[in-house]
Amino acid sequence: MAAPLVVTTFERVPEFAQGYVRDLRVRWALEEAGLPYRVESIPFGERRPEHLAHQPFGQVPWLMDGDLSLFETGAILLHLGEHSPRLLPRDPRRRSQAVQWMFASLNSLELAFIPWLMAVFAKDDFTSPGGRSLIAFRDRRLSELEPVLAEREWLAGDFSAADILAADALRVFDRTDILAGYPACAAYLARATTPPPFVKAHADHTAHFARAQG
Amino acid sequence: MAAPLVVTTFERVPEFAQGYVRDLRVRWALEEAGLPYRVESIPFGERRPEHLAHQPFGQVPWLMDGDLSLFETGAILLHLGEHSPRLLPRDPRRRSQAVQWMFASLNSLELAFIPWLMAVFAKDDFTSPGGRSLIAFRDRRLSELEPVLAEREWLAGDFSAADILAADALRVFDRTDILAGYPACAAYLARATTPPPFVKAHADHTAHFARAQG
Repeated sequence: MAAPLVVTTFERVPEFAQGYVRDLRVRWALEEAGLPYRVESIPFGERRPEHLAHQPFGQVPWLMDGDLSLFETGAILLHLGEHSPRLLPRDPRRRSQAVQWMFASLNSLELAFIPWLMAVFAKDDFTSPGGRSLIAFRDRRLSELEPVLAEREWLAGDFSAADILAADALRVFDRTDILAGYPACAAYLARATTPPPFVKAHADHTAHFARAQG
Repeated sequence: MAAPLVVTTFERVPEFAQGYVRDLRVRWALEEAGLPYRVESIPFGERRPEHLAHQPFGQVPWLMDGDLSLFETGAILLHLGEHSPRLLPRDPRRRSQAVQWMFASLNSLELAFIPWLMAVFAKDDFTSPGGRSLIAFRDRRLSELEPVLAEREWLAGDFSAADILAADALRVFDRTDILAGYPACAAYLARATTPPPFVKAHADHTAHFARAQG
């Protein structure tokens, strides 16, 4: 990986989003891997063609590795995993299991958490059938994850990119007491986000948006 | 891949789910790849420990490749892609782009579709703030996908595993007229599901559940 890695995120975001924009996942992975990188910014307002050319859903982040442009944090972490055994084990079997948990974090966990969070932001009262189904889906997934995390330190052997995605998916509950009902999930989230790579990534991420706001 | 591949799905499912259980994705990928496989069944009712040992969320499918057990259709298709250039290109750059669209299909598209579908099944009237946010999220993603599919045949160069995941994500709209507003998405879905690999996978899938019901 000779060319410099470049992560692009928004220049500024609303205050409630600070600490939770997904460039954090990529920063975290790069800190875990010890790979040098720099961060560039794109406006948050109107999504221009040069933004959509990199990210057709108008989101962030994307990663430039030389002239390869990649979006989707799952795909970016898998790509970085090619360069770092800290992110993905080299052994094919263990690697398959880490990749399995990367997909599970996004498609089984986060798929049940984000729509609930969007309804929270929309100030839903969760009394409609659809609102109740969002709560039930969220709680079912947490209940299923709880026994998994009660018996292992990390999702797939050693710490891997899967833990970055799963822990960050669980961070949607940061401002709630929901994880109090799921102590193994809460302990796992604390375990993942205490070491220096997360702490540095989070500090750099929040400093980026604080600078834009100042 | 010397050992036989085995896909496990439910023995039977409610009639509304037939045609849409996710073993279909794996069958489709295996048909595209021309890899031999067989299908095994697990009860739909109580999720027993031997089920949860393979799939901790109590879902299907999982794949056995020798003694490696993998769940999550994204992870399974990525694994099968190691054995078939029809599913994942060999060229590293094109492969990264196909993998990017695999993640996008699951985490950007399906994440916006499934919670809406669950609210439909719950008979929500979509008048609450949360209900309206589900509709808005679904439509935003379709609007963003539409120009992408208007200018390309497949998501990442030639047909790949990304198209299996994206097309199957779009199949949630089969029983609605929603895709009428998104002609490029509708044409893409038809293009993906007309060739023999999908047709055979779908026929085998529906025959499996029809037999269980009969």
